[in-house]
Amino acid sequence: MSTSKKWSDLTMQTIAKERATPPFDIRKMSIEQHGSEKDLIKKEKFMLEAARDPVFYSSDIYDLTKDQIRERTMQRIQKLAHYVTSESVDDFQKRMELMSLLDPGLWTRLGVHYGLFLGALRSGCTPNQFSYWMEKGVIGCKEMFGCFGMTELAHGSNVAGLETTATFDEQTDEFVIHTPNLGATKWWIGGAAHTATHCSVFAQLVVKGKKHGTKTFVVPLRDPKTFNLLPGINIGDIGKKMGRDGIDNGYIQFTNVRIPRAFMLMKHTQVTRDGEVREPPLQQLTYGALLQGRTAMVADSANTAKKALTISIRYAAVRRQFKSDAKAELETQILDYPIHQRRLMPLLAQSVAFGFTALELQRLYDETSNAIEALEPGDPNLNATIEMLKETHATSAGLKAFCTWATLETIDKSRQACGGHGYSSYNGFANMYADFAVHCTWEGDNTILALQAGRSLISSYQDAREGKKLSSGTGYLNNIEKVLAGKCPSDAALDTLDGIDAGWATVAAHAVKKAADDYEARIKAGRSKEQAFEDCSQVRFVAASIHTSGYIFRQFRHAVERLESRGDGVKEHLEILAKFYGLWQMEEKAAFFLRSAWLSPAQMDAVQAKVTEYCAKTREFAIPLIDSFALSDHVLNSPIGRYDGDIYREYFNMVRKNNPQLKGHPYFEKLIKPFIFRETPEMEDYDEAIGIDDEIEEIKQDREEAEAEAKANEDK
Amino acid sequence: MSTSKKWSDLTMQTIAKERATPPFDIRKMSIEQHGSEKDLIKKEKFMLEAARDPVFYSSDIYDLTKDQIRERTMQRIQKLAHYVTSESVDDFQKRMELMSLLDPGLWTRLGVHYGLFLGALRSGCTPNQFSYWMEKGVIGCKEMFGCFGMTELAHGSNVAGLETTATFDEQTDEFVIHTPNLGATKWWIGGAAHTATHCSVFAQLVVKGKKHGTKTFVVPLRDPKTFNLLPGINIGDIGKKMGRDGIDNGYIQFTNVRIPRAFMLMKHTQVTRDGEVREPPLQQLTYGALLQGRTAMVADSANTAKKALTISIRYAAVRRQFKSDAKAELETQILDYPIHQRRLMPLLAQSVAFGFTALELQRLYDETSNAIEALEPGDPNLNATIEMLKETHATSAGLKAFCTWATLETIDKSRQACGGHGYSSYNGFANMYADFAVHCTWEGDNTILALQAGRSLISSYQDAREGKKLSSGTGYLNNIEKVLAGKCPSDAALDTLDGIDAGWATVAAHAVKKAADDYEARIKAGRSKEQAFEDCSQVRFVAASIHTSGYIFRQFRHAVERLESRGDGVKEHLEILAKFYGLWQMEEKAAFFLRSAWLSPAQMDAVQAKVTEYCAKTREFAIPLIDSFALSDHVLNSPIGRYDGDIYREYFNMVRKNNPQLKGHPYFEKLIKPFIFRETPEMEDYDEAIGIDDEIEEIKQDREEAEAEAKANEDK
Repeated sequence: MSTSKKWSDLTMQTIAKERATPPFDIRKMSIEQHGSEKDLIKKEKFMLEAARDPVFYSSDIYDLTKDQIRERTMQRIQKLAHYVTSESVDDFQKRMELMSLLDPGLWTRLGVHYGLFLGALRSGCTPNQFSYWMEKGVIGCKEMFGCFGMTELAHGSNVAGLETTATFDEQTDEFVIHTPNLGATKWWIGGAAHTATHCSVFAQLVVKGKKHGTKTFVVPLRDPKTFNLLPGINIGDIGKKMGRDGIDNGYIQFTNVRIPRAFMLMKHTQVTRDGEVREPPLQQLTYGALLQGRTAMVADSANTAKKALTISIRYAAVRRQFKSDAKAELETQILDYPIHQRRLMPLLAQSVAFGFTALELQRLYDETSNAIEALEPGDPNLNATIEMLKETHATSAGLKAFCTWATLETIDKSRQACGGHGYSSYNGFANMYADFAVHCTWEGDNTILALQAGRSLISSYQDAREGKKLSSGTGYLNNIEKVLAGKCPSDAALDTLDGIDAGWATVAAHAVKKAADDYEARIKAGRSKEQAFEDCSQVRFVAASIHTSGYIFRQFRHAVERLESRGDGVKEHLEILAKFYGLWQMEEKAAFFLRSAWLSPAQMDAVQAKVTEYCAKTREFAIPLIDSFALSDHVLNSPIGRYDGDIYREYFNMVRKNNPQLKGHPYFEKLIKPFIFRETPEMEDYDEAIGIDDEIEEIKQDREEAEAEAKANEDK
Repeated sequence: MSTSKKWSDLTMQTIAKERATPPFDIRKMSIEQHGSEKDLIKKEKFMLEAARDPVFYSSDIYDLTKDQIRERTMQRIQKLAHYVTSESVDDFQKRMELMSLLDPGLWTRLGVHYGLFLGALRSGCTPNQFSYWMEKGVIGCKEMFGCFGMTELAHGSNVAGLETTATFDEQTDEFVIHTPNLGATKWWIGGAAHTATHCSVFAQLVVKGKKHGTKTFVVPLRDPKTFNLLPGINIGDIGKKMGRDGIDNGYIQFTNVRIPRAFMLMKHTQVTRDGEVREPPLQQLTYGALLQGRTAMVADSANTAKKALTISIRYAAVRRQFKSDAKAELETQILDYPIHQRRLMPLLAQSVAFGFTALELQRLYDETSNAIEALEPGDPNLNATIEMLKETHATSAGLKAFCTWATLETIDKSRQACGGHGYSSYNGFANMYADFAVHCTWEGDNTILALQAGRSLISSYQDAREGKKLSSGTGYLNNIEKVLAGKCPSDAALDTLDGIDAGWATVAAHAVKKAADDYEARIKAGRSKEQAFEDCSQVRFVAASIHTSGYIFRQFRHAVERLESRGDGVKEHLEILAKFYGLWQMEEKAAFFLRSAWLSPAQMDAVQAKVTEYCAKTREFAIPLIDSFALSDHVLNSPIGRYDGDIYREYFNMVRKNNPQLKGHPYFEKLIKPFIFRETPEMEDYDEAIGIDDEIEEIKQDREEAEAEAKANEDK
């Protein structure tokens, strides 16, 4: 198409130039961010397979209806099920990490079965119970597909408050599962509307008229051969959601549904044949499943932020608008405007920081899981393991909250940075935002998780004060007096990882101390522990926010420091990004750096100036850096984010393909024609037509005459 | 439904209690926020009409496809067209303000014709030209509907860079409109895909081979009788967007399309019969149309923020989760948690602040428009009017940017505050966000507008330094030395409107001064004016941000001070909200208050504590305040935001109605059954089946034997 050549040539040449002399080895930069070359190669293989597989065709995805997306998702599940049984767990998890980026609804729909339902069985079944469900086919989704029945219409996060009941019927040796009122309807249950045959139902255990708290029960929902609902089961579709339409969320109401006693998960609490309830001797270590979800979400935050930025920054490199110099031949690439760098470059550094943090969190998670699995009854490592679990739990809570928030913001800022084209569905941001948004809500509302992290920081602070040595995550609290008194020694300190790190330590220490002091003051004032925590929730929140920024900076810093300087530019450029992230976050939270006096007012100006400099510096290698994120055009599914820069032609073609012109006008005869050729109904002057005013006048005159006559008669 | 009664009773009683003893007269509070009782009554009339009109039925809207929404929108346009000719301009504008809240796509689709196309004619036509289009039917959309052809695929904000050409053909007395390449395709043109018969096309005027810049031309697109495209016109549908699917955006390519010379709008530049181009003597005063759009968007920000908060705060009042006190009979209303108040109450104060600011901006706009219309040639008021226009222009640029950003954030924070139910489309946030998001991009990208506001502040600063007296908006620059030296005298000052106002003046003055100083330093360093502005874009941005927060606070403050204390509680509670807004924004931008030393570090803590107090204080009257926003359940279209609090029953019913259960499973036979009953293809051991290993072994032995034989022969 000759008329498109001008722009194709220009944009493709422009981006090629950006790649001509990368200051680092792109492949090696990519390997570091993927953890290992093996993992990078795996991801490339998965991407290639998906790009070639017709079931993963995605160019038409933005125009599909909810119902069409659900079918497409089911087709993709069929394809992926092959790998569940043929691939190692680790490989399949890596594959799913990619799927989450490619098709978040698909990831959720499989995750409901493999993560939530199977996870509930794993953590709640006795060995015999688990064998039973294995034989039934739970691993390969054979004749069964699970869903996870926790939340109810009127209850979300407060599991103890759920109202569904599971009443033991001693006579028949069964539990009766029942939804007592509308608010107790199971709600938001992913997979319930169209996919699931079984549900792990959270319900109040009732035995001999006594409540024993919320336990888990496997309840069959449908006959797998016909998919007819079983007696007493009422399921409906929850319908349209903000995003992730590929997952069929539903509601479930149980009307006295009977299940065998053995369908209660009895690893912990047990109910015997004659109705004795045996409580577990130890508190359950049920954090594990939560941790896995959060770890996955931090990785997804990094990956999704990189995806959004790949699109917006490649677009900024090839989009030209206005001339900075009137004599220039071409308009300026918008990425060359300082303000556009300010919009995107800090987010770019942040996405890389999140990536390294996700790798570290995965390591921490693996270590913690292994330690838990290795525990024996009466193990001397029990306390140490519980401590480790608590720390990982608190760290992951803060990371889940702040990384998902920051990534949601990154998506929308990327969209805005693409101007009008960002608002077209075909460039991907609309779906990306709508799909990602739920990360801030599920598996723990972000605000609640941030408060949990803040609560744990208060307790760490108290531990440190009592002389306990804290591990690296909160290590800055070990030597708190000195850390609190810290000050930025000079502008030069802001140019070093050590210097920036010291700043975060001091400011986080101040924030944690303030939260702890406020909390303790409330306790002294006679408030209960819970009340005191509520009272100081805002300062707890701030403490968690600052601690988490510092924590992310430190993970990034350590990743850089572990690298050798190999002459390939990788370590040096990651170090630039680490400092950039640390300083930019310092600017974002400058009030607390000034408040604690770590920064003087003049130093705050220096931080701002440095951040602007880092924006310009990072812009220079932004395109090679983005290439190292290794996201295929198929995964991006966004013509303005194409690798080769031929954005306008591809965007135009995608729009045209998905909106064929030859269909004719959908409603001209029906709606447009009657509108533009309508007769405006003239309001007739009914008063005049009826002649009402003359008539009124006549009546008036008649009356007056009659009255005058009457009067004359009277006078007579 | 007896099982729903428990929750219905509880939630309805809960919200009734919130309304039992309002501390102010709700009706009077409502009147103040609507500008006058007349305007409130008008709005109530419009809402009632819409709620009763089947064309405005909205319960099914969240499940409609793009194509269905477009038809629904066209039906609504037919209904509204009646009012265009029967209502006063002012009434119709008020009606449209409501429509923007009820159906943003509809507002856009009508706005394209009445705001953009008609606006282009009004500002660009000679009197004769305008009469011609009036007679053609432009006012009543009779046999014509206009669209606005400005943006191109490769050009958005830079109008001067557009590539479409309009070449004068002296021989035929016509212009030839042409799209020279793909990037010049008119793109995003609202109404082009399905509605428009005519387009106001921005194109490069070319006469006798010479370019004369971008001018506007009316180009007929379709035969109104058949809606067939006219020769040389190629139009396609732009398809799926993030939001506002009701408006049919399209692309247009012109291939040597001929129009009469008189279809160029010639109020300013003129082309004579023999190809003489007459440039206008004065610069055009074309800001007017821009101002109208921005004024509408600030009002829409206030209204939309109030809509989002009505839903999230009513929900927070009736939603209960966890017990703060273990002995309490009921769980706690989530609005009673301090952190939940922190999430929503500042945004509530902000939405009220935006409302009063929008009223003031409307007043300013009316005043400016009247002054422009009153101008005569050689008018001595010309300079004063241009000054007024410039000021209104800069103010509205900053307000449009920061109000739309803050409202977009308010929508998503409201969604998140509703947990999982916020993610359901039926509660309205998903569409509200997707529809509203484009406000940050169109009619001037927010970042660019903020920079324009910052540029104007630098120029005001320079004016003030040269002794010019500035008007109220930037009045704090008049006495700058004193203002810069300001400090918060005591915590008590933070409790007064004057005290808070002084803080904003000082901090804004510092920010503006920094921007101006940086700019001038760049100029001294030899940079061109444009370069210097680019160099200091970040500080310009910060200056605009702080100035605008202070400006909004001041508008709110003045609105409060204009009120009399009437014993109805209105003034007193608005004053609480004004202080709350001023202090919360101070906390949000605390770094700059510390940097300028207006706040001491200890005072910053006091500000934070006060904001937490104001959150609790505002929570007490949050529900009555929200009632004063006067938004009907029909406009809200969100069951969890219902006035009567009966949220669970209505939400359940809406979900059920829109997702009928009796349709049967959509794809069980096709996709689910083959999946859960699939045979896993066992990888056959082809090696064994083919017996390849034995065969290889035999071949090997044969070879060895042969070799041995050969060797033996050799040895012989």
